[in-house]
Amino acid sequence: MKLSKFFTKTEREAPKDEISVNAQLLERGGFVYKNNSGIYTYLPLGWRVLGKINKIIREEMDAIGGQELFMPALVNKRYWDASDRWDVAVAYRLKDEFGHEFALGWTHEEVITEIAKRYIQSYKDLPVSVYQIQTKFRNEPRAKSGVIRGREFLMKDLYSFHADEEGLNDFYEKVIEGYRRIFERCGLKTYLTEASGGAFTKEYTHEFQVLSEAGEDTIFYCESCDYAQNKEISKLVKGGKCPKCGNMTNSGKAVEVGNVFKLGTRFSEAFNLYFVDEKEQGHPIVMGSYGIGPSRLMGAIAEVHHDENGLIWPESIAPYKFILIALEHSYEKAEKIYQKLLESGMEVLYDDREEKTAGEKFADADLLGIPVRLVISERTLKSKSIEIKKRDKNTKELVKIKDIDSILTEA
Amino acid sequence: MKLSKFFTKTEREAPKDEISVNAQLLERGGFVYKNNSGIYTYLPLGWRVLGKINKIIREEMDAIGGQELFMPALVNKRYWDASDRWDVAVAYRLKDEFGHEFALGWTHEEVITEIAKRYIQSYKDLPVSVYQIQTKFRNEPRAKSGVIRGREFLMKDLYSFHADEEGLNDFYEKVIEGYRRIFERCGLKTYLTEASGGAFTKEYTHEFQVLSEAGEDTIFYCESCDYAQNKEISKLVKGGKCPKCGNMTNSGKAVEVGNVFKLGTRFSEAFNLYFVDEKEQGHPIVMGSYGIGPSRLMGAIAEVHHDENGLIWPESIAPYKFILIALEHSYEKAEKIYQKLLESGMEVLYDDREEKTAGEKFADADLLGIPVRLVISERTLKSKSIEIKKRDKNTKELVKIKDIDSILTEA
Repeated sequence: MKLSKFFTKTEREAPKDEISVNAQLLERGGFVYKNNSGIYTYLPLGWRVLGKINKIIREEMDAIGGQELFMPALVNKRYWDASDRWDVAVAYRLKDEFGHEFALGWTHEEVITEIAKRYIQSYKDLPVSVYQIQTKFRNEPRAKSGVIRGREFLMKDLYSFHADEEGLNDFYEKVIEGYRRIFERCGLKTYLTEASGGAFTKEYTHEFQVLSEAGEDTIFYCESCDYAQNKEISKLVKGGKCPKCGNMTNSGKAVEVGNVFKLGTRFSEAFNLYFVDEKEQGHPIVMGSYGIGPSRLMGAIAEVHHDENGLIWPESIAPYKFILIALEHSYEKAEKIYQKLLESGMEVLYDDREEKTAGEKFADADLLGIPVRLVISERTLKSKSIEIKKRDKNTKELVKIKDIDSILTEA
Repeated sequence: MKLSKFFTKTEREAPKDEISVNAQLLERGGFVYKNNSGIYTYLPLGWRVLGKINKIIREEMDAIGGQELFMPALVNKRYWDASDRWDVAVAYRLKDEFGHEFALGWTHEEVITEIAKRYIQSYKDLPVSVYQIQTKFRNEPRAKSGVIRGREFLMKDLYSFHADEEGLNDFYEKVIEGYRRIFERCGLKTYLTEASGGAFTKEYTHEFQVLSEAGEDTIFYCESCDYAQNKEISKLVKGGKCPKCGNMTNSGKAVEVGNVFKLGTRFSEAFNLYFVDEKEQGHPIVMGSYGIGPSRLMGAIAEVHHDENGLIWPESIAPYKFILIALEHSYEKAEKIYQKLLESGMEVLYDDREEKTAGEKFADADLLGIPVRLVISERTLKSKSIEIKKRDKNTKELVKIKDIDSILTEA
């Protein structure tokens, strides 16, 4: 993609109404546009990052047997009445002119449970799990954390169905392992944190927390064994003893990037979702529910991976792997190298803007956080070379143009 | 994917409240689930079909230079006030407890025009085009055509920005060619049909129409030169003379699967979206808007491609290319062939359900409309063969198992 043809531009200043680091950097870079408080457009750069995050999530959900589907946002009142969640504070409710009442889906336990009734009758139909990546709506009273707490946001929600608690427990562990892989692949160190069940369950649940000053939670955690508890339920103190390994615990603010819930039979009983076992006995199905917000995840990554000059995307989710910068009279040569990179299947952003100074181009490359910067100038061309610099390193390297193919494949 | 592990099952009978062919077949096959009138869940099979349709659309939109982004569904009242479209009949409107008023996005001209103001100032920023594939909401008074007319549905909407009418006209033709390729690749014969401008413009617009009894439109069309007009604006009659080539015109019911609009400066003037030309003179930007509904497209394809036994998906958008059916004592051998097909990267559904009869399995394969059926049974194994039958042909063929690799690559 050529920057001269790109829909968005970078901005020198962050919008005055954005106080969170993620929103400031993402807006300045042209990754997102704020339509209203908590309501964002994902611009081409941001949508590419989300596409990569979603691809990682899909791969890991498919690997544990999840089947992808797509449920509606208009969720009829009958669903919420069945589970007694019509009046939940965060729901956007509406009544149409035919008198139909809906809440915009802020979660989908109710909808998936009704659907499951059509397809699950016997123990032979279990276990099974389905997921979607879909827009959710929650009317958050405070929406000041950029894309970390949106009123409209992307969510991956996975639901699982089991014959018994044991089946649920096994799958719950599989999801936790899948989630660990997702966050690792996205470049995040997470703590699996014990937390309260909230509106869903009375048992403890688990959250995946990322340490960050942008977080709305506080966790106590142990750096030795990775044990962690949310402050809300914790009896731990900072500097106390970890109940697992005895080492000293620490505390910090954290962003919740994923959660796993054992729902038990709360929804299957509300919707009469039963199966018959080998002996033709009926039982309510045991369910689990597991969430990751891809747009929130993008925000958490921006909070963790940046410096004073801008974003530093992990390569796995960067919108482009390379940014090629042409300076002075090198545009002709740069165009050839750009075409060559495209032909080799490289994801490259080409800064071909002749009206911009070298300083402006370097600043934009840093702000956008593209992992590898390539510079062609009169100076580098004198030695038939191209300058390579990684976003997260300070060292530059001159590489002969004839050798760049192999270098870039390794980079 | 093994059918024994699949979330959905086929149904013998269509739901009684579905009168359209597409909804009957899609529900019976387990492609969609109706949550409410005009509101559907896309189940794993349907979501796979939509994924393939969306991929084709993305490829063709990218090829004409469209940049993908993703706008919100909650569209604040200020947007609609600016264009005087707050009171449009199809809009779902809501007011939250903070007093914010929104309509759920039934189209996005307003939102994209406001966003464009941040990034387009000069003639150097033009032309540019952006698109999204995103859920739209329209409170249709009648929603009886299955996924062809949803109250909540997927839409690909493309918006283009130009310095003048000439630039718009050039791009408009490029979009028409892109749309032709999309519909061809999805296995649909479409007529580019002149139609009225509706709420958007006073000029004629163009619709892509597919002849089908399920259609809500009537078109006059010429089979010789493909000229067509929507009955709403037409002075043509059936059996009359085509104004283009002089041959006889025909008439028929049709489903609109795409449309292209020249918006002119309607929205740029409403939102004050101006650019400065080379002489530093300001002008309102000239815009175009172009829609395709992927979920409606799936419905139209189901209407056109089926027989009395079920769906007949074109290979390009089939959820799986192959269905492998194991009969009698062939499960062990079938499992090996299934694994081999997966390893070769083939998309294959494996009917491993031992409790089902041959007749039930054949009926399901036909209903699901998978392009190529492979059968392994005691009989075929006697000659070390597998039976191959295409969904749209009546002939069967026995192929030696050792030769299937090359055969399937060609199939």
